[in-house]
Amino acid sequence: MSGLLSSIKGPEDVRRLGAAQLPRLAGEIRDTLVDSCARFGGHLGPNLGVVELTIALHRVFDSPRDPIIWDTGHQAYVHKLLTGRLAGFDALKQEGGLSGYPSQAESEHDFVENSHASTALSYADGLGKAFKLRGERERRVVAIIGDGALTGGMAWEALNNIAAIKDLPVVIVVNDNGRSYSPTIGGLASHLSSLRVNRRYEDMLEFVKDKIGNVPVLYDALHGIKKGVKDVIAPQVMFEDLGLKYLGPIDGHDEQAMEAALRKARDFGGPVIVHALTQKGRGYSPAENHDEDQMHGPGAFDKSTGLEKPKPRIWTDVFSEEMVKLGRERSDIVGITAAMLHPVGLAAFAEAYPERIYDVGIAEQHALTSAAGLALGGMHPVFAVYATFLNRGFDQLLMDVALHKLPVTMVLDRAGVTGDDGASHNGMWDLSILQVVPGLRIAVPRDGERIVELLREAVATTDGPTVLRYPKGALAETIEPAGKLGEMDLLRVAESDEPDVLLVGVGPMAHICMDAAKLLDAQGINATVVDPRWVKPLDDALVVAAAAHKLVAVVEDNGKVGGVGDAVSRLLREADVDVPVRSYGIPQRFLDHAKRAKILGQIGLTGQDLAREITEAIAKRGAPMESPSARN
Amino acid sequence: MSGLLSSIKGPEDVRRLGAAQLPRLAGEIRDTLVDSCARFGGHLGPNLGVVELTIALHRVFDSPRDPIIWDTGHQAYVHKLLTGRLAGFDALKQEGGLSGYPSQAESEHDFVENSHASTALSYADGLGKAFKLRGERERRVVAIIGDGALTGGMAWEALNNIAAIKDLPVVIVVNDNGRSYSPTIGGLASHLSSLRVNRRYEDMLEFVKDKIGNVPVLYDALHGIKKGVKDVIAPQVMFEDLGLKYLGPIDGHDEQAMEAALRKARDFGGPVIVHALTQKGRGYSPAENHDEDQMHGPGAFDKSTGLEKPKPRIWTDVFSEEMVKLGRERSDIVGITAAMLHPVGLAAFAEAYPERIYDVGIAEQHALTSAAGLALGGMHPVFAVYATFLNRGFDQLLMDVALHKLPVTMVLDRAGVTGDDGASHNGMWDLSILQVVPGLRIAVPRDGERIVELLREAVATTDGPTVLRYPKGALAETIEPAGKLGEMDLLRVAESDEPDVLLVGVGPMAHICMDAAKLLDAQGINATVVDPRWVKPLDDALVVAAAAHKLVAVVEDNGKVGGVGDAVSRLLREADVDVPVRSYGIPQRFLDHAKRAKILGQIGLTGQDLAREITEAIAKRGAPMESPSARN
Repeated sequence: MSGLLSSIKGPEDVRRLGAAQLPRLAGEIRDTLVDSCARFGGHLGPNLGVVELTIALHRVFDSPRDPIIWDTGHQAYVHKLLTGRLAGFDALKQEGGLSGYPSQAESEHDFVENSHASTALSYADGLGKAFKLRGERERRVVAIIGDGALTGGMAWEALNNIAAIKDLPVVIVVNDNGRSYSPTIGGLASHLSSLRVNRRYEDMLEFVKDKIGNVPVLYDALHGIKKGVKDVIAPQVMFEDLGLKYLGPIDGHDEQAMEAALRKARDFGGPVIVHALTQKGRGYSPAENHDEDQMHGPGAFDKSTGLEKPKPRIWTDVFSEEMVKLGRERSDIVGITAAMLHPVGLAAFAEAYPERIYDVGIAEQHALTSAAGLALGGMHPVFAVYATFLNRGFDQLLMDVALHKLPVTMVLDRAGVTGDDGASHNGMWDLSILQVVPGLRIAVPRDGERIVELLREAVATTDGPTVLRYPKGALAETIEPAGKLGEMDLLRVAESDEPDVLLVGVGPMAHICMDAAKLLDAQGINATVVDPRWVKPLDDALVVAAAAHKLVAVVEDNGKVGGVGDAVSRLLREADVDVPVRSYGIPQRFLDHAKRAKILGQIGLTGQDLAREITEAIAKRGAPMESPSARN
Repeated sequence: MSGLLSSIKGPEDVRRLGAAQLPRLAGEIRDTLVDSCARFGGHLGPNLGVVELTIALHRVFDSPRDPIIWDTGHQAYVHKLLTGRLAGFDALKQEGGLSGYPSQAESEHDFVENSHASTALSYADGLGKAFKLRGERERRVVAIIGDGALTGGMAWEALNNIAAIKDLPVVIVVNDNGRSYSPTIGGLASHLSSLRVNRRYEDMLEFVKDKIGNVPVLYDALHGIKKGVKDVIAPQVMFEDLGLKYLGPIDGHDEQAMEAALRKARDFGGPVIVHALTQKGRGYSPAENHDEDQMHGPGAFDKSTGLEKPKPRIWTDVFSEEMVKLGRERSDIVGITAAMLHPVGLAAFAEAYPERIYDVGIAEQHALTSAAGLALGGMHPVFAVYATFLNRGFDQLLMDVALHKLPVTMVLDRAGVTGDDGASHNGMWDLSILQVVPGLRIAVPRDGERIVELLREAVATTDGPTVLRYPKGALAETIEPAGKLGEMDLLRVAESDEPDVLLVGVGPMAHICMDAAKLLDAQGINATVVDPRWVKPLDDALVVAAAAHKLVAVVEDNGKVGGVGDAVSRLLREADVDVPVRSYGIPQRFLDHAKRAKILGQIGLTGQDLAREITEAIAKRGAPMESPSARN
């Protein structure tokens, strides 16, 4: 590690540096970012874009007295480097190493840990109000939000509230790189970037300097100081319409200009927007020139070329290919993404049918109700989204889609344990909260063949919404069914006529159940394995099957509370079949980051653990097992 | 019923009338609105404000070819009157009568049924896209949204998307009455109503006419046609910044002016905003002069005075009073409401501590994350909200509040069956979806004393979020505990040493359990009744108690799926206690509107039904019950 950066133990060391040293510091930071992302993967592009901005923030504000809140915390790597965490970059996102997001456990400089977008302004609103109420007059809150996150509705809700309190000590830095994951879309985007439309970054800066000079002016729409500039530099108009002061646009890579703007904002005493123009991937040419997303969040890559190592075939790939086929067969199928066209696998569909794809921005609420509108109008929308982000649109799914029984298909990628992105990325909620939605059908494919089969069944459904969910990472091997039990796949027939355990493997967990069944067999415990395929509604054949066993074990890659285990138990209770049910899933707490396979092992979702647990459950109930009717 | 209105069988009859007849039609509509709301209660104020607007809509557009989507559907009464549903106003919101919201079952002119706010623009976006894709070029979508609903983030998400498609056939009518329930708040509100700040409605209209004349102009910010007007009439600036055309402001009670503006908007062919200024309560002086909310949604009232009939003491009243006491005792307690200050009972707190109350607008997402910020800053926020609307902030509760273990208290009013407002108002989801939130504690008070007790326990909690939930309507009678079982209240001790049934009454359902216990007693079935008070986490004492009974019955005013019944069953399974559990709650479907008591009867949540069900459950299990004589 080179000299300057390694001497930085905290923000006070950043403030101590002379201006002339800062470019060298910025260079060392970029080298460190590229080095560790090349080894472990990580959010390279966004962090390369905020190097100077972050240095300026720590020189102007006094963290943690002045909380610095990063929206979508993946842009906080530089902040981590400047707050004494250089050493942790040796194991970025690795088990026991630094989190890829802000973390209260790591540092007093990290206030919030969540990685869901568009929240920073609301935190800032609350913190600012608390400082006011408690008379902590010297404190300021700084929220850094990207132009992408501004497309999220809650950012708008927050702006509307922040603007209403004239002396709220909040500084909002809009980090405008014109891209969320892929180019930011919508009216706001074309508005924020009206300058960018026909100009490259360098031209734009020149244009801006020519119009407003290097010294930022504090604009105020209501008092008319800004004539002339307003019509060429559009963004402030909108913010000022809300009653917010506006500073900018500033070249976010001119550290001195950023400092000057931030000082002015800090000293103003009320809510101010500082509009910084930055370049995603700045300073590392493979990222700058990366067309898709400026190396937004690559896996491990070759440092000299920026090329990622070859990846195995993933679940998303199967969905992606099948959507292109479906699009060809049916003209009513449309795709929807919330600013994640590539990661959710809709890019190929978009290329094939550009008029039938909608990127709505980071706006899951709108995605679902707009899908409801499309379905009302005769289309069949497929909304592909990370499982954890569907929570943002739960009310809209329930009240706008399901209440009207509309044929909308939601495809939940990264469902279950995702691992190294930490607690807020795990998709461990959907199989629970979606249980309450009347008329919703939920399918969980266990392999690629089942993605194809179940996606086709989902889009063939005309009388209500459907969900498909699958995990992150490499596609599981195929398990061909040994037979059917109603709509369920019978994967393994127990050898005995009076089998002991019915293993219900939800989607990919069928693999673990097959492993466990073999191990149980060796101990003389006879196991049947089924994959329900559709876990909501559950098939009545499950009741019949359960009644023929002495214990039912449900295994799911979802929180244990309220998931398929609970649903199976309820189904049996309601049928007055009181066979004992045991459920195995993710413990209901926020998980630390680590690789998916590692976490599955830690929480006992392996064939061995399952076999041991079931053996114990049977032992506790007293072996040899009696049939349920013999009890009592 | 008077002549003109009763001759209207559908929109074509509205179009057939001469302009001179319209004031009479408007008068008859207002009389009808006042008459039926006086009898049954209803959303009077908002509907009196849209009489001319709705007439104009049906004369300009061709419903249902052109879908008319009402945001927060309670403003659709006039629309119902003009689409052949006059007769139904004899039983507005009554069982079997007209719904208080749009209803697909009632009319082809009603497209969406939901009453949650800020959704109309997203539906319109989806419908508009479908019309484009299907080549239905003659169709238009009209969305009517209030200035209050524009404070909701998803409206912003939708605007951002609508603006991006230049030929999307969507007309957005902003119905600006400066009030959602109470005065609309935030930067947008002061923006939209900058004219209103110092002027009354009449002055404002004069001012507008003076500035822009009677003929609306189609403004376009980017091409600079609107100089001069822009700086005095603020709102269009913001909309135009997004790339949306803007027409207005128009006097929403000048039917001819509205028609002219709507025709222009209809013929434009791309997305247009029509900004109508209306007066809530218009034409009925008790509503016009009603300070609190222009008779937004009164119960039955005296037609001559507008005074509502006296109401019984409700659950909200107890909360309201206790909050004032808590505010006096603790300076760190702050109140938060999402545009429902009076209905959720925070008005008294606001009056006592005006610096500690925040009305964030119809913005539940922001409410929760701003609360997280307040808690991070050392305050204890109490967010009072209707149970069904908490769904809007589920992700924020999970990821922003709970992940950080922040002491935020959520008070869910109108939890359980609410009844006459229909499917989307029933608070039947919270006890299910909140189960998954790590570290969240949930209390359900059964009576007023328990509200006081549990609210105090909730705000004394410092290591994580808490929820309190209670129903709509009259406060239940007090049930004093007979003893304690851990943290649970033991309400009734079974007479036998080997009791049959453990009745777990969740909050107000304890009353039904007490009734059922008496009836069961008469049949020789011995019942213990407990109220867990805190249903998450459940007390381990419940396991011990359950193991001493032959059946456990859980009764909750919540959807049966994923609620307390499932939680009790899971608790017992995990403790390897396989006592059969039966759960009783709301069937997992969208309920039709009717009075709360009526619905509870229909779905079997009465003491009699419960006693019968339990008797049957016991009979099915074939477990011989001891005879009454053998017991004593």
